[in-house]
Formats: sequence, C-alpha cells, structure tokens
Amino acid sequence: MIILKLGGSVITRKDSATPLLDHENLSRIAKEISDSSYDELIIVHGAGSFGHPYAKEYSIGEKIETEEELQKKKLGFCITQNSVKNLNSLVCENLREHGILAVSIQPSSFVVTKNKRIYHANLDLIKKYLDLGFVPVLYGDTVLDLDESIKMAILSGDQIINYLGEKLKPNRVILGSDVDGIYDKNPKKYPDAELVQVVTSSEDLESTEGTGTVDVTGGMGGKLKELLSLAEIGIESQILNAGHDNLVKKAINGEKGIGTLIKSKKK
Amino acid sequence: MIILKLGGSVITRKDSATPLLDHENLSRIAKEISDSSYDELIIVHGAGSFGHPYAKEYSIGEKIETEEELQKKKLGFCITQNSVKNLNSLVCENLREHGILAVSIQPSSFVVTKNKRIYHANLDLIKKYLDLGFVPVLYGDTVLDLDESIKMAILSGDQIINYLGEKLKPNRVILGSDVDGIYDKNPKKYPDAELVQVVTSSEDLESTEGTGTVDVTGGMGGKLKELLSLAEIGIESQILNAGHDNLVKKAINGEKGIGTLIKSKKK
Repeated sequence: MIILKLGGSVITRKDSATPLLDHENLSRIAKEISDSSYDELIIVHGAGSFGHPYAKEYSIGEKIETEEELQKKKLGFCITQNSVKNLNSLVCENLREHGILAVSIQPSSFVVTKNKRIYHANLDLIKKYLDLGFVPVLYGDTVLDLDESIKMAILSGDQIINYLGEKLKPNRVILGSDVDGIYDKNPKKYPDAELVQVVTSSEDLESTEGTGTVDVTGGMGGKLKELLSLAEIGIESQILNAGHDNLVKKAINGEKGIGTLIKSKKK
Repeated sequence: MIILKLGGSVITRKDSATPLLDHENLSRIAKEISDSSYDELIIVHGAGSFGHPYAKEYSIGEKIETEEELQKKKLGFCITQNSVKNLNSLVCENLREHGILAVSIQPSSFVVTKNKRIYHANLDLIKKYLDLGFVPVLYGDTVLDLDESIKMAILSGDQIINYLGEKLKPNRVILGSDVDGIYDKNPKKYPDAELVQVVTSSEDLESTEGTGTVDVTGGMGGKLKELLSLAEIGIESQILNAGHDNLVKKAINGEKGIGTLIKSKKK
C-alpha cells in the first residue's frame, strides 16, 4: 500500500485569493499515477486556495469567545467545507478521466478531532474500498472538534497522512510538495541552503520554520513533524517536488533518491 | 427534530439525460426553509438527473457475473458518486446563501449496506452537527454493499429517511415530492384518481405501482414502504408537493392537512 499526498500548493494556485485549480499540474500528476504501478493506493490532497483563504478569514480552530464568533465560525465552516469538497470533486473527476477509480471520502462525514488532533475515525470503509480496487481520495477539510473552546477545527491533509499511516501501515508514504524536499535552512532566505537527503530527527535541521508561503496547516515544519512520527513507528516517507515532471511516477514505482527521505534513526 | 426530504424530481430536472439542476425550485424551497421555524432540521435530498441516468446505465446494485461487469460497475460507482456529490454541493451552497448552516454529509463515506439495506452507519457525528445548530444535508448516493454478489448499491434518499427516522426519532418527517401526495390509483392513468388524506397501511391503496416516471429507487411504492415502516414505530410523516409554493414552509411550521399523512393504525 502506498499513501500519496498531493499538496494544495501543487494542485491549486495557492497564491490565488479565490479558489483556482492548477489544472495542468493536476492532469499531469493524474497521468503519472495512471502510468505507474501499485497494488493499493490512497490519495490525500491538500486544500490550497480552495480552503486556506476561508480557514484564515474565519479563524476556524481558534478559541471561540462570543456567540457572535461562534456563528461566524459556523458560517465559515460551511463555506470552507463546500469549497474543499468542490476541489475534491475536480480531483476525483480528473483522476477518473485518467483511468483511476477514484472514490471520494469526505473527512467531515466521519472524523472528529479533539484539540485539533484526530480523535475518532473509522477506517473500515476505506479498507473495503481498497479491497475492491478503488483508490480512496481524502482531503484537508473542516471537522468538528470535541474541545468545547474551539468546537471546529481544520484537519490538514498532512495530519490525515499521519493518521492513515499509523493505522493502515502502508509500505510507503509519498508527499508531493511544491519544493524539492527538506532543506537545511530556508532556501528562499539562504542561497546556500542545501537539500537534505535523509532526515531522521527534527534536530537534524538548522531551520524548518516555513517554506516562504503562508500555510495555515503548518508549512514544512508541520509536515515534517507528521512524517517523523510515522518514521518512529517504522514507516518511511519521502518529500518530493510534485511540480516537476515524473517525480510522482518514479516515486510510486519505487525509485530511490528523489527528494528527502524521512526515516527512523533505529533502522 | 424535523427530517425533510427534497425529492430529486423537485430539485433537478429529472427528465434530463444529463445532470440539470432545477435552480428555481431549489432557491424557492431554500427560502421557504429559511423563513420557517424549527429547532433541529436534517435535510435529505434525492439524486434526480444527477444520479439516476448513471445508476441505470451501470446497473449498480445488480448481480455481478463477470470481472468485466465488476470493472464497469466500479467505474459507474465513481461517476455516480462524483455527480451526486456535485448536486449536494449546489444544494448546500444554495441553502447557505439563504442563511441555512448546511453541512454536507456524504453517505458513501460512512454507510455500508447489506443486500441494499443500510447495515452500518454511525450517526454520532450527525447528532453533534445538530447540537451545534448546523443543518446536516445527506443525499442519495452510491455505497459499498456487503453482499458479495452485488458489492455496490444505490442508497436512496428514501431509505436514508427511514434509517434516520428509526434511529433519531424525529418529531416529524416531511417528504417533498413532485406530486400532491398518495393517490388511490395512478393519477396519470386514471382521471378519477383521488388524493388519499391518510394512509395507515399499503393495503389501503388500490395501486401504488409508480408515479409515471422511471425512478430506480422505487417510485412512490418504495417511498410509501419506507414511511409505513416509520409509522409502525410511531413516527408520522407527510408526503406533499414541494413543487408548489409554500407547502414545505407550511409543513415545517406544523400546518396540518397538506398532502398525505402516513401514520400508524394503532394511533
């Protein structure tokens, strides 16, 4: 089993203030997936410009102090949920047009978080879809949170990857990002920043404070944290640039040395 | 709590061979819901032209005899799922534009059937959305079926109504259809057909074999069966014409004598 993340920064124009698909990237990646070989595949995609502008505008996941704030956040929840669902429709449709039997799985229909971390999610149905040869497609979404002070949360695609990885024990996790991998320092600030081949601990790095774009779901630091916790239970992952031709395809096919490998020290 | 069904024949152009929204009806009904008063509301909508043409083309829910049939049905599953999800997006967006905090709940993300009847569906999340004041919006969808001979099934909005009714014990169930209610015989065949005010058993009726349009999810006979089984556990429902102005609003507000009432004999 492979779990593939498609970053919102890859499949959408993340700098757009309104939802905008990167149709070219999406179609190319769909073709790459279609041309590669795998036994079982789960795809998780980010929200990009379909989610982040709304999540930010309505501060979903932040403490609710007044009834007015609650009402505003509830409206924001509905707007964000519908927008990311629309992105998921476009992704699933595009995948299907490339011959991939993509089945949409809506996180807000079966996941609850507690203090922004997944508290409950029944994965039996996802296993059944896999057994039948479907490719489940999950995505960053708004979800209910059991913490009374926030009530709602943004569930990032990266956290979904972490949860699925932990529960389903995939052979590999591939994170398709808009950067080549993990750098020793921010490459947009430091021209001498170098791509790190293997990361085994967050202490390996001088700086992981961000990728230079605003990402409410945590930027590269957040991604790395999720992947390092998978590495600790023996699940290797790689971060690569899905914006470059054929890297997703090569990674699915098992080619080594692309991007950054995240694995446990113990191995 | 009120559970409101919006028939696919009301919110879509059901006679269209391709997905086509009845935007006028949908907007009018959204406004009626917005103008009415309720404590808790769940909306379930049908698929109409967004689902039935595909479900029929791919015969989802029929016995699978060959690997070729399985592959074809899996493709049909993906196409149908995405199309009804698109309808749900349009419905939720329209409801929200009318001030209703509509949250989409995707049945194929949490429901499995066995021999075409709901076998498992955790409703805890729906209760949580209701507690927070959201209006969960479910819909007729494709789902996985535990019966190995069919593997996939069409879950009708009417069956969802029945299941939610049984589990959540709403005060009332309102079924917004494109006909005035239940007739003693098919009004499209017999000019002397009369609207039945109260139905307490399917034996009350001379004929319920259909409403004159092809409805793969059972037509009026199927709807009535679902509602009669709710009546048996004490939950009253009414079938009314949601194509007519203000009937949905009046029914939500508790007005009696609209359409056909389905209730238990024992009462």
